[in-house]
Amino acid sequence: MIATSTNRNTKEPRITLVGAGPGDADLITLKGVKALQTADVVLYDALVNAEILELAPAHATKVYVGKRSGDHSYSQDAVNKLMIDYAINYGHVVRLKGGDPFVFGRGFEELDYAASYSIPAQAIPGISSSIGVPGMQHIPVTHRGLSESFWVVTGTTANHQISPDLYQAAKTNATVVVLMGVHKLAEIAEIFKSEGKSKLPVAVIQSGSTKDEKVAVGIVDTIVEIVEEKKITSPALIIFGEVVSLHPQFAPIKEFYDIIAQE
Amino acid sequence: MIATSTNRNTKEPRITLVGAGPGDADLITLKGVKALQTADVVLYDALVNAEILELAPAHATKVYVGKRSGDHSYSQDAVNKLMIDYAINYGHVVRLKGGDPFVFGRGFEELDYAASYSIPAQAIPGISSSIGVPGMQHIPVTHRGLSESFWVVTGTTANHQISPDLYQAAKTNATVVVLMGVHKLAEIAEIFKSEGKSKLPVAVIQSGSTKDEKVAVGIVDTIVEIVEEKKITSPALIIFGEVVSLHPQFAPIKEFYDIIAQE
Repeated sequence: MIATSTNRNTKEPRITLVGAGPGDADLITLKGVKALQTADVVLYDALVNAEILELAPAHATKVYVGKRSGDHSYSQDAVNKLMIDYAINYGHVVRLKGGDPFVFGRGFEELDYAASYSIPAQAIPGISSSIGVPGMQHIPVTHRGLSESFWVVTGTTANHQISPDLYQAAKTNATVVVLMGVHKLAEIAEIFKSEGKSKLPVAVIQSGSTKDEKVAVGIVDTIVEIVEEKKITSPALIIFGEVVSLHPQFAPIKEFYDIIAQE
Repeated sequence: MIATSTNRNTKEPRITLVGAGPGDADLITLKGVKALQTADVVLYDALVNAEILELAPAHATKVYVGKRSGDHSYSQDAVNKLMIDYAINYGHVVRLKGGDPFVFGRGFEELDYAASYSIPAQAIPGISSSIGVPGMQHIPVTHRGLSESFWVVTGTTANHQISPDLYQAAKTNATVVVLMGVHKLAEIAEIFKSEGKSKLPVAVIQSGSTKDEKVAVGIVDTIVEIVEEKKITSPALIIFGEVVSLHPQFAPIKEFYDIIAQE
């Protein structure tokens, strides 16, 4: 136990991508916790709950490389390089990412960069908000008789456009979950309207699984107004589909439209 | 501390659905572990790793209600009733389900049944194999330039047919993940062929995240043969999409087709 201060030079570099889950610190996996416990360095994103950092050893270096819409503290290139530098100089780098590393998380780019330096890298999945956040609100992404599939799409592609995939998704019977799209909600709702789905149930959930969680439930025709009233903003996800009708807040909406239908 | 043996009658009934993840016991969440630690009864499925049961107290009753294709030990009705009976008589029932409770897990039916008895119920998400299993193989369900969305479909609907959603999915640019479909692989591959996607990369992963994991990588035209050679069977998932080309096993396949293309 003499040369503690030189330990950094004797450790084999390695990188572990860890999905931190949607927000609630307890939604990280045991495998993620174990990786953190052996971390020499943690590089973490904006949407990662700070409580999770406390699972890493006190001596581990924790570096915020936060990226969220409109706050690009570090470019992906810069994150990649930091990751390699720290691995070579300190040993085990845990790259802690919101949700799951591969759901719009650019996780593969980081694995690929590590491989180009022959640094061993592995990925530990995280709870993706796309499934977990609706689920905790008792909105199942699949449900017998209502949905046999779900389609997860980003509302913000690399070129800041709505993905062509979303136009396709609006035509189908899949439950459609849109991540990073709430700032384009009006535009996205129009896509569903143009497919004749004005009455399709929709939910928008901000800060899902955390104490700041906010939920809006409506239909395609009304969701923009409800989201404005409730002052819901990013980070939020949108769920389009009949499964949303199972949410308790949908019961009065259904009642209202049933009465109108009878008149 | 006198009447320990009558505790069962004084506890408030409650139910927690917990997603156990895809196989590796360490892929359960901390929140799931905490729920298990306060369980009086655990009702668990076939695809749940038995090591996870050890996280529940020794005195907790553990009941196998396993369901997997071809082995319907308990009907959904029977599971629902057991869940209620145990909650009323013992207190906290943890319903431990493979993957995530709402990804073809019939989780909502269980929540709904609990609600009909006014028993409080909550759901704790799990790592869905649909995202986590490809991810651990370094196949990202989304990747810049290759895929802006992913669509998760079941290969086995309630009426044992291929879902109409899969026919739609085969027409799109989404990464398509098919759960519970490997026994219909030939039929599913035909759907992609009929959309002109004979050369689309495909992977099939059996027992993902466990020591028994098997992986087959190919293209739509060859995958059935490769899966037969490797003797891959259920439980397995299928991933269709350009993202599969990022898997190391795809490199020689790409090389082969590049040579053919040059000839």
